[in-house]
Amino acid sequence: MQFVIEQEKLNAGLSFVARAVPSRPTHPVLANILLFADQANQTLSLTAFDLSLGIYTRMAASVEVGGRCTLPAKLLSDIISRLPQSTIAVANAIGEQSVTLKASSGEYQIRGMGPEEYPELPQVETGKSVQLSANALLEGLRRTLFATSPDEAKQILTGVHLKIQAGTLEFASTDGHRLAVVQTENIQSTDSLAVAAETTDLEVTIPARALREVERMVSLGSLDQEDALAPMGLRLDESQVIFEFGNQRLNSRKLEGAYPAYNQLIPQEFSSYIDLDRRQLLGALERIAILASQKNDIIKCTIDRDRQMVCFSAEAAEVGNALESLSAQISGDEPEEVAFNVKYLLEGLKVFTTSELQICLNTATSPVILRPLGELKMTYLVMPVQIRS
Amino acid sequence: MQFVIEQEKLNAGLSFVARAVPSRPTHPVLANILLFADQANQTLSLTAFDLSLGIYTRMAASVEVGGRCTLPAKLLSDIISRLPQSTIAVANAIGEQSVTLKASSGEYQIRGMGPEEYPELPQVETGKSVQLSANALLEGLRRTLFATSPDEAKQILTGVHLKIQAGTLEFASTDGHRLAVVQTENIQSTDSLAVAAETTDLEVTIPARALREVERMVSLGSLDQEDALAPMGLRLDESQVIFEFGNQRLNSRKLEGAYPAYNQLIPQEFSSYIDLDRRQLLGALERIAILASQKNDIIKCTIDRDRQMVCFSAEAAEVGNALESLSAQISGDEPEEVAFNVKYLLEGLKVFTTSELQICLNTATSPVILRPLGELKMTYLVMPVQIRS
Repeated sequence: MQFVIEQEKLNAGLSFVARAVPSRPTHPVLANILLFADQANQTLSLTAFDLSLGIYTRMAASVEVGGRCTLPAKLLSDIISRLPQSTIAVANAIGEQSVTLKASSGEYQIRGMGPEEYPELPQVETGKSVQLSANALLEGLRRTLFATSPDEAKQILTGVHLKIQAGTLEFASTDGHRLAVVQTENIQSTDSLAVAAETTDLEVTIPARALREVERMVSLGSLDQEDALAPMGLRLDESQVIFEFGNQRLNSRKLEGAYPAYNQLIPQEFSSYIDLDRRQLLGALERIAILASQKNDIIKCTIDRDRQMVCFSAEAAEVGNALESLSAQISGDEPEEVAFNVKYLLEGLKVFTTSELQICLNTATSPVILRPLGELKMTYLVMPVQIRS
Repeated sequence: MQFVIEQEKLNAGLSFVARAVPSRPTHPVLANILLFADQANQTLSLTAFDLSLGIYTRMAASVEVGGRCTLPAKLLSDIISRLPQSTIAVANAIGEQSVTLKASSGEYQIRGMGPEEYPELPQVETGKSVQLSANALLEGLRRTLFATSPDEAKQILTGVHLKIQAGTLEFASTDGHRLAVVQTENIQSTDSLAVAAETTDLEVTIPARALREVERMVSLGSLDQEDALAPMGLRLDESQVIFEFGNQRLNSRKLEGAYPAYNQLIPQEFSSYIDLDRRQLLGALERIAILASQKNDIIKCTIDRDRQMVCFSAEAAEVGNALESLSAQISGDEPEEVAFNVKYLLEGLKVFTTSELQICLNTATSPVILRPLGELKMTYLVMPVQIRS
């Protein structure tokens, strides 16, 4: 194996795939990155894989002699990231696991492990294939990933549920206490890449961890590209999904099991509506949260229809209490009081981007809906907290 | 107590004094900040004190009723920092430990503790008093604080030793493995603030922790002021030092015991001199350090006088090895090889600011001196590591 590559390219590639390197590898070779120098295509590809999430990227390189090797991810990234912006010559002798890196002033030998020990990324040969709007994907992920459950025991709730239909993408996430649902249009900017007809009515639940990397992949892509983003390819079979974006590929297992029928949980009618300024509400709740954090994060919301004001309060006997009042547009008669876990409210408000939002209520114990008022189609459901009065 | 103050001022003051609030207070009241509203002077002062380090600041406020109270530092800072930029009204009833904060939209009640429980900051009534150039102090602290010992058992070595003479300030720090000495001119920019004659030949060792806050105090001050900085007042007696800078004051205990006679350790003659580009050396050592970190941080420096090159190398049998070569101006014949702990070299090079530096050597086992080449008067002594060959 022998090739020359620009430091910047290799560094970007390494930091991209490194996210799939497990911090506690079940097998030593998984702490490594697989390098494949392809002489025919004059490319270098990098692969990292923790047996659940796999990330692959390919970049141009001057390949003199093709070959494969694996090198310790952290050591390699640490060295490459500190080399000056110039070319790096990489070589190893046939059958040797030690690789030499030569840069302008320095020479590094790193011991790797045999590439034959590195597991293959799962392939999706048969199965379905769709094109997704990268922008729509980014929009949806940014507003649903936060509401997934971090608890591995909750299985299917650790992922985001994706419903792909001809013209729309629906994202849903819930941890059992709150639910975020986002609808975006799945429209490509170029005709040649129009959504394939076969894509209708596909549903899949994908681990949040993999989708965070998809979000990152698209975000980084949008920095490089001035125009609309290229579409994201998605292939899937019984157990695997593969995202394809330019020269990058991300493999993940699917989450098994039926995703909760969340649309049934969303009330269609409400007894009260409250319209509020989002930034003011966010500021008030962030302050109230300081005192609420001393007592289970619970805050009380009092709706004053006469003065068209909403008051949020928190009490922590030993420490103090807090009261924030906001003017609002309130319609409907019920309820007068409702209590929340302030963390759930805050997390939802942070992904809204509109200047105003609406809170929709029925009773003090039934699901409450928060919606951004404006272009974004998002429904955020929060269960109130029951308080003894 | 009753006063009105701007959110920005109060917030800046709180984050300044908060550094002296202990994370694990030995007495509950020390987790609080002491507020003193002074009606006669129309000021609010804030004090935090962990019984070793005390920080005090004073700011303008509209004081209706004077008084004192103490409030939990973290809770207070968290709330004040999140309030909008406007005025805040602060009040408590006589004899009440609960304080009310009123801002534009919110109202907060915080329980404090009686101000009579809060310990007094030590006073320095008699003793010596000097004026220091704030810029000189900043220069010196920035280049010596890093070399103090973090080990509390090492007592006097946990501080920076200051030698104050008529026109100069000398700073020294050592942890037993390396020594940093900086000389700066102690000259005020305004005549009226010229150094007092009584300031000659004063020596004191001050804990690094307190000096880091002094550094911060001056750094923040230099952001506010466009011209040269106001001088720093230093008063000291047998056990205490007080730094005074504008409306701010910092108390610290002195470190007791004799500081090592460090000047005796610095060789005056050398057998070899190596002049190097500082940035190139820093880059090379940072890369070498990655491999050296796998094996006690030891690197070998080989001096090639024929080629006028210096090579740095590290070997970690299981992992790999690294070699960096730099062109240099080398004079003198000895030694050919010398080994270092790369961390000590790196920490020193990072506080140098000149484009070139000089390494001065005698033998492979005698103290090595690094000096910035240029305006800065700094001596950095590092003990080589003995290696078995």
